[in-house]
Amino acid sequence: MRNRGHVYLNGRIVPAHEAAISPFDVGLLRGYAVFDLLQTVGGKPFQLEGHLERFRNSASLLGLQVPLPDDEITRIILELLELNDYDESIVRMVLTGGESDDGMHFDPATPTFLIITHELFTVPEESYRSGTKLVTFEHRRELPQAKTTNYLTWLRNHSMLEQENAIDLLYHADGYVSEAATASFYVVRNGRIHAPDTGVLCGTVGTMVLDHAASEFEVVRGPVTLEDALGADEAFITSSVRGVVPIVQIDDSVIGDGTVGPVTTSLMTICRGAMQAE
Amino acid sequence: MRNRGHVYLNGRIVPAHEAAISPFDVGLLRGYAVFDLLQTVGGKPFQLEGHLERFRNSASLLGLQVPLPDDEITRIILELLELNDYDESIVRMVLTGGESDDGMHFDPATPTFLIITHELFTVPEESYRSGTKLVTFEHRRELPQAKTTNYLTWLRNHSMLEQENAIDLLYHADGYVSEAATASFYVVRNGRIHAPDTGVLCGTVGTMVLDHAASEFEVVRGPVTLEDALGADEAFITSSVRGVVPIVQIDDSVIGDGTVGPVTTSLMTICRGAMQAE
Repeated sequence: MRNRGHVYLNGRIVPAHEAAISPFDVGLLRGYAVFDLLQTVGGKPFQLEGHLERFRNSASLLGLQVPLPDDEITRIILELLELNDYDESIVRMVLTGGESDDGMHFDPATPTFLIITHELFTVPEESYRSGTKLVTFEHRRELPQAKTTNYLTWLRNHSMLEQENAIDLLYHADGYVSEAATASFYVVRNGRIHAPDTGVLCGTVGTMVLDHAASEFEVVRGPVTLEDALGADEAFITSSVRGVVPIVQIDDSVIGDGTVGPVTTSLMTICRGAMQAE
Repeated sequence: MRNRGHVYLNGRIVPAHEAAISPFDVGLLRGYAVFDLLQTVGGKPFQLEGHLERFRNSASLLGLQVPLPDDEITRIILELLELNDYDESIVRMVLTGGESDDGMHFDPATPTFLIITHELFTVPEESYRSGTKLVTFEHRRELPQAKTTNYLTWLRNHSMLEQENAIDLLYHADGYVSEAATASFYVVRNGRIHAPDTGVLCGTVGTMVLDHAASEFEVVRGPVTLEDALGADEAFITSSVRGVVPIVQIDDSVIGDGTVGPVTTSLMTICRGAMQAE
């Protein structure tokens, strides 16, 4: 087994192999858990404040409460980053309902709070230059405003995505697109950026980039049909660990002229700039 | 913390507090897990064969494989039951994709296989005599044929159900009912039993009871509208740990005349008979 460094679990920082999640945890038995993740830039957590805010919001949608204040969590994350010492890391915070004797009842006052780190993976530079592909999938997330641990549909299709050389699934339902399985999804039509705004998780990087781009591009928040997505001039996804990634193909449909368009190129530049400025 | 006896985890039977699920398990990080549970009758596993078959089927829908043959699992369960020594138990088997360095990739060849027991809870006798209530909820399970660990919608509404003195949620979508959150759902109209047959998990107790009742009642497997459910003569749920439980109210609608009807009464008798005959 690979060395996974140290992790934080319920009040203690310990080597990963000493951290024991109980077999009676409702995060495991009932999937009752939320999480958030972020990447480091120059070894420092990027957009930590925004991720903590979203993490607390996800928790509250499940009737849970993150048991530590922001400054304490920040201190723990910095200590983990120093101990684990990757060049760049992904930091993952997980909060579950805690242990349950009967697999039904649990006490929200004793949640399980876990923080682990992974080595940052990077998307090949070629994907940013030439764009990537999405595969559509009819699906509606159960509680889209909360970042729950439920990634069943995505993981079941993970090897299909690798075979198709696609970067992610694009979820749609009743003719409307919502988001990619692990990223926010946007289209560009006639110079305007269209952001689906219902049934989606609020994307931290997407929000940042669109805020930065507000003076340059009009952003329309509202429903986007699958048809509009397939016929868009440009499309892109945003995520905390990948930034802005151009989409040039959805299923068998080529988006625009099949190359990375000018709006997406601008947004990639903006995103990289914002990350370097940190 | 309560004594949870011994558990089986990946090849070993150990005291529950010594069983450590890794913080890198995709069952925890990504909700990528299936389970099954059964109760004991007279201290012996009831319908173990059927539950193992369904458990293997659930696993296979997630590209996973239960790593032990039935006879080995049976031997482990019997050993756990003897060690934990409840009067009657619930046996819960859980299978996850196993550990993942990056929270994405895992090797189906090294799943996490867990078996735990709980003390059997019983539904109050009054519920069988006078019937119980369901609360409707618009929801479609993600992969209904598989018994996954995702019970987000149910657990989020658990305290509402207790306040409403309701036994479960009744899921419906597009005008059709599917199943209760933790049980199969059936209605009786004009002497016929109607069993929703799409978007549902195959119920082991429900199947057993309807098989036993086949000479006595006609069973219609097919779509059941929410309207038909609300206007039914009788309704009932079935589950492995509760048998047949009459439903006399759905939301504010009284079912039939609000008492436990003759078909449900017959089926409760059949179910109890089948369990005692074991």
